[in-house]
Amino acid sequence: MFFASDNAGPAHPSITEAMIRANEGFAMPYGNDEIMTRVRARLREIFEAPDAVVHLVATGTAANSLALATLSQPWQQVFCTPVAHINEDECNAPEFYMGAGKLCPVGDSDKIDPALLAAAMGGSPDITVHSAQPGPLSITQATEKGRIYTCAEIADLASIASRAGQPTHLDGARFANALVALGCTPAEMTWRAGVDAVSFGGTKNGCVGVEAVIFFDPEKAWEFELRRKRGAHLFSKHRYLSAQMEAYLADDLWLDLARRSNARMGLLAEGLRALGASFLQEPQANILFASLPRAMHRRLQEAGAVYYLDGSVEGPDDTMLQARFVCDWSLPEEEITRFLNIAAG
Amino acid sequence: MFFASDNAGPAHPSITEAMIRANEGFAMPYGNDEIMTRVRARLREIFEAPDAVVHLVATGTAANSLALATLSQPWQQVFCTPVAHINEDECNAPEFYMGAGKLCPVGDSDKIDPALLAAAMGGSPDITVHSAQPGPLSITQATEKGRIYTCAEIADLASIASRAGQPTHLDGARFANALVALGCTPAEMTWRAGVDAVSFGGTKNGCVGVEAVIFFDPEKAWEFELRRKRGAHLFSKHRYLSAQMEAYLADDLWLDLARRSNARMGLLAEGLRALGASFLQEPQANILFASLPRAMHRRLQEAGAVYYLDGSVEGPDDTMLQARFVCDWSLPEEEITRFLNIAAG
Amino acid sequence: MFFASDNAGPAHPSITEAMIRANEGFAMPYGNDEIMTRVRARLREIFEAPDAVVHLVATGTAANSLALATLSQPWQQVFCTPVAHINEDECNAPEFYMGAGKLCPVGDSDKIDPALLAAAMGGSPDITVHSAQPGPLSITQATEKGRIYTCAEIADLASIASRAGQPTHLDGARFANALVALGCTPAEMTWRAGVDAVSFGGTKNGCVGVEAVIFFDPEKAWEFELRRKRGAHLFSKHRYLSAQMEAYLADDLWLDLARRSNARMGLLAEGLRALGASFLQEPQANILFASLPRAMHRRLQEAGAVYYLDGSVEGPDDTMLQARFVCDWSLPEEEITRFLNIAAG
Amino acid sequence: MFFASDNAGPAHPSITEAMIRANEGFAMPYGNDEIMTRVRARLREIFEAPDAVVHLVATGTAANSLALATLSQPWQQVFCTPVAHINEDECNAPEFYMGAGKLCPVGDSDKIDPALLAAAMGGSPDITVHSAQPGPLSITQATEKGRIYTCAEIADLASIASRAGQPTHLDGARFANALVALGCTPAEMTWRAGVDAVSFGGTKNGCVGVEAVIFFDPEKAWEFELRRKRGAHLFSKHRYLSAQMEAYLADDLWLDLARRSNARMGLLAEGLRALGASFLQEPQANILFASLPRAMHRRLQEAGAVYYLDGSVEGPDDTMLQARFVCDWSLPEEEITRFLNIAAG
Repeated sequence: MFFASDNAGPAHPSITEAMIRANEGFAMPYGNDEIMTRVRARLREIFEAPDAVVHLVATGTAANSLALATLSQPWQQVFCTPVAHINEDECNAPEFYMGAGKLCPVGDSDKIDPALLAAAMGGSPDITVHSAQPGPLSITQATEKGRIYTCAEIADLASIASRAGQPTHLDGARFANALVALGCTPAEMTWRAGVDAVSFGGTKNGCVGVEAVIFFDPEKAWEFELRRKRGAHLFSKHRYLSAQMEAYLADDLWLDLARRSNARMGLLAEGLRALGASFLQEPQANILFASLPRAMHRRLQEAGAVYYLDGSVEGPDDTMLQARFVCDWSLPEEEITRFLNIAAG
Repeated sequence: MFFASDNAGPAHPSITEAMIRANEGFAMPYGNDEIMTRVRARLREIFEAPDAVVHLVATGTAANSLALATLSQPWQQVFCTPVAHINEDECNAPEFYMGAGKLCPVGDSDKIDPALLAAAMGGSPDITVHSAQPGPLSITQATEKGRIYTCAEIADLASIASRAGQPTHLDGARFANALVALGCTPAEMTWRAGVDAVSFGGTKNGCVGVEAVIFFDPEKAWEFELRRKRGAHLFSKHRYLSAQMEAYLADDLWLDLARRSNARMGLLAEGLRALGASFLQEPQANILFASLPRAMHRRLQEAGAVYYLDGSVEGPDDTMLQARFVCDWSLPEEEITRFLNIAAG
Repeated sequence: MFFASDNAGPAHPSITEAMIRANEGFAMPYGNDEIMTRVRARLREIFEAPDAVVHLVATGTAANSLALATLSQPWQQVFCTPVAHINEDECNAPEFYMGAGKLCPVGDSDKIDPALLAAAMGGSPDITVHSAQPGPLSITQATEKGRIYTCAEIADLASIASRAGQPTHLDGARFANALVALGCTPAEMTWRAGVDAVSFGGTKNGCVGVEAVIFFDPEKAWEFELRRKRGAHLFSKHRYLSAQMEAYLADDLWLDLARRSNARMGLLAEGLRALGASFLQEPQANILFASLPRAMHRRLQEAGAVYYLDGSVEGPDDTMLQARFVCDWSLPEEEITRFLNIAAG
Repeated sequence: MFFASDNAGPAHPSITEAMIRANEGFAMPYGNDEIMTRVRARLREIFEAPDAVVHLVATGTAANSLALATLSQPWQQVFCTPVAHINEDECNAPEFYMGAGKLCPVGDSDKIDPALLAAAMGGSPDITVHSAQPGPLSITQATEKGRIYTCAEIADLASIASRAGQPTHLDGARFANALVALGCTPAEMTWRAGVDAVSFGGTKNGCVGVEAVIFFDPEKAWEFELRRKRGAHLFSKHRYLSAQMEAYLADDLWLDLARRSNARMGLLAEGLRALGASFLQEPQANILFASLPRAMHRRLQEAGAVYYLDGSVEGPDDTMLQARFVCDWSLPEEEITRFLNIAAG
């Protein structure tokens, strides 16, 4: 009953089998392997973007930090939400890669409010040499709270950034979860909506550790490569990253896995709702924030359920305590049933 | 006939099998997996260093850059050779991680001369606030030219650093190759000789992509962890790094693989010497710089041999051209025989 | 009628005369001049801190950025208000000097609320390797909105920082203005209240360009010197900084000038209040935010008054518009009288 | 008898008088003062460069570091001599401002050898993503050893940089000394010879503390301003920098002062040569490295002469010891006569 994160499950067997298949003879190092050539072509095809720059790294923090650094200058600020992973959970990695740039949290929600963004980015007459200069917009899709921007919402935000002369980055650690929930195409959710760069996550959706960074404008391709090397994120035996990504994309595995984890969350949410739980917001992907009675939490924890609690389980039985639940692709349905049975008491 | 590097061969099957075995159920992320606990214990045992700090990263550049950053300050300089990998081949990654520190090349050889090091580090009365301040010593074992420091040589250099109040770092991208060539213990080659931190390489010796960073003094353990996270080198699904390292250390696989690549180099060097080649220096590990006639190079290249040439093969048949050869653990003996036959003409 | 800032007035003649007096013969460079020896002794005396580390720089941005960098680590965040000068007006200079650290705005006021600070700094169980780590507290005295912390308030905030294991920095760009308003001693307003480092401003209070950075704990003295040099803020002809500071401190000039600018603000505020102006908050030093009718602003602007407006003067006569007024030490009383006469219409 | 440096003498009275004259009433801060408008126009006129970007900072380290950072990228290396001030005497300031870039010392002289520069910069086929990338050339005029590049030599070096796609920076801490020695125009010594940016020194030649940074191509003007602010080098009371520079340029004061210090060096060198001293190289500006007998040094030191010695004066009377002598503009002729008399014994 592991609901703590989607970063702790196993890789899908197709992914590891692809790594084994790649483990034969010599292969050109540093991203010059043949599998990478195929991966690049496939991602360009999936994104309907024949000129896109496509590179692989092994962590989401690297994907986001390198992408944002490539899109910005050290005297700028990146606009994001206060709960953005880049703001809360990367120990200043984006600032480090940006060369001492700044993040500017906008609003107090997990989705950026267009009016607040326009106010923050939009041509304040006060922007002088003394201010942090406006830089890129970064949005997380699906958000850290499990919500999803529609393509129209993305387009709206990206157009605000664009009017301020700034690019838009999409942190897609859970790209696939959002995509299958929206039922749109990758192009629609990104460059057609004005997104300039994407961190295209694999790790949280069944890979061992691989993320693609995609720039739709090839201008900064070489700069990204230099930044990746300088950040120590260029793998010599790169084929094992390529092999993961190739298997992830093959036969729509990436979409199947995302559908699976979203569906698991559907089951969980339905069950918890039936038990009277209230939700921070309606789950749209594979993350849920739900308030449950402390007594219920205690039963679950004692039974070995693992998830994040926003406070202590100690307290009166019927007082509520919020928790975060994440469904990994690998979570068996029976685990959810078992969890709900225990929750029901 | 691939002699270009030891960064392009396959992983040993034991390594990938261990990754597959690890791919079961949920595992605590970010280095809190159980395999890592065993790896840490095993490396402490191998190094006879029960308090050592042990962490894993996926690239050698990360291991070196993070280790040096942890041992230094941004206003210092790291002393190394001009041909050190950290100086020549990491696109300013060490400087980046140091926060804009400096590398100070000492001498013009692949092994640091103690007298030159003492002159460079040793308490110049000119070190004022205007100078780059003295920082750590970093030595590469085996060196980038394929030579090996004896333990006494390491101790000599480390004591010079120590007298200047500075720690010593050992870039052990080819740690195992050096160790089996010397026939000493890991402790003798490191902390007993005064080494404070080691980049303990796995990638070039049969792994998919894993390096251990070992500090013998636990004082900076937490700082290293923060630097690793901030550098985007903390893996969520860390178990796959742990599994590689566990298999690498099991049953002395790491030593066997190093013996194998060193032995291959022995065969190659013997064969080339018999053909009249002259060597930059006697190979001690799995790297050789040899001068061969251009005609011989042309024959080899036409037959598909892959290795680095220091210039163009075009030119009179009997003019000499230097080349670099590296033997990977996976290189079949027959490939060497075939290579030598073609070389013989 | 210049009320735009206290960074645009002339230096007091005593300051420039001291620079002229210092302009004789050779003087040891880089802070080794004899005047600096006297300045250091005098500041230690004024602060009743015989071991304090005292250095001079030429800009307030340098004083703050170097002080904070010396007190922090790149993976930390500095706690300050959202309107702190370091957060709003230094184009990422603090982040740059910190080596890519982060600023964490607390609350939404110009004075930090102790409860919010305790919540932000205080031992959240969520502080893991993924979070920006807690770093120093920085408070501005007088604040950017013209208010003043009492010594007890400073002590309260500093003790919260201290309980979190963190030092407290005081941005004293208007140190003297606050001190004379409180009527306390420099020691009471700083180290006795738990402050660890002070940016002791001179530039805004009658100097040409000089700020002292004072650390009460000498441990990081040398690090500060290296950071200052590396930041290009160590002056060769340092005597001209020393001479300014010596004259500034002589015969309590610094206190007299601050009393003068505070008194000017008293006159201005009294006059505006009599005209019905409402204040953002009661002015305590030499800064005032006041709401005046647009018609009044237009009269003042047409007459040549210079100050910052929070919006456009265009609009109905009797609609209100907020403005910021700062009184420099050099502002003649007659200018204020004239200003008020014009305001009265 | 102060020959230690030209950074310890007084400012010329015209400079300080100009500061006093500027000390009247309010003046727009941050470089928007009227004097700066005139300074900019005058420097453009002097350099025959109507579009040049002209900004002032207070230290030479700031001028060099900001100029180089503006011309380069963090993954590049700046080519300079090993004894370049930026390499030896700025405590990693250039690296800090470059965002962790690298300096690449070329050759072993104070003047760069064109052949060695071409080899270092010139399109090595080995420049891959792993290498520090080629960046700007920086030359010091006059050099740290007191020699001067001819305009043809500068043009030769700059053309090598240009062929490698890189700009050329000129560290002109002693710009005027070189200019009057060559008898050429500022344009001839800079942009007509291919120089892209100049640190135009004032501090060592009679100012209190001011340097101009000049870019002949206006493209990076705004970036420089942001870098200056972020580096904490933008002065609020900027008029005092402007006033220095205006007085420095007025009536050719800058050229007169340089002629004076060069002439003093001529006297000194002539005198020492007559006493049998041997020179490291013929002095061309106001710096001399001369070998004198230890007995002579002892006499001079006992009489209070101040200059740098390359070793200890203790030793046999007639053994030689090298010393560095610098003549400041303010050094009285009688001091040189007195010095030579003591030297003569």
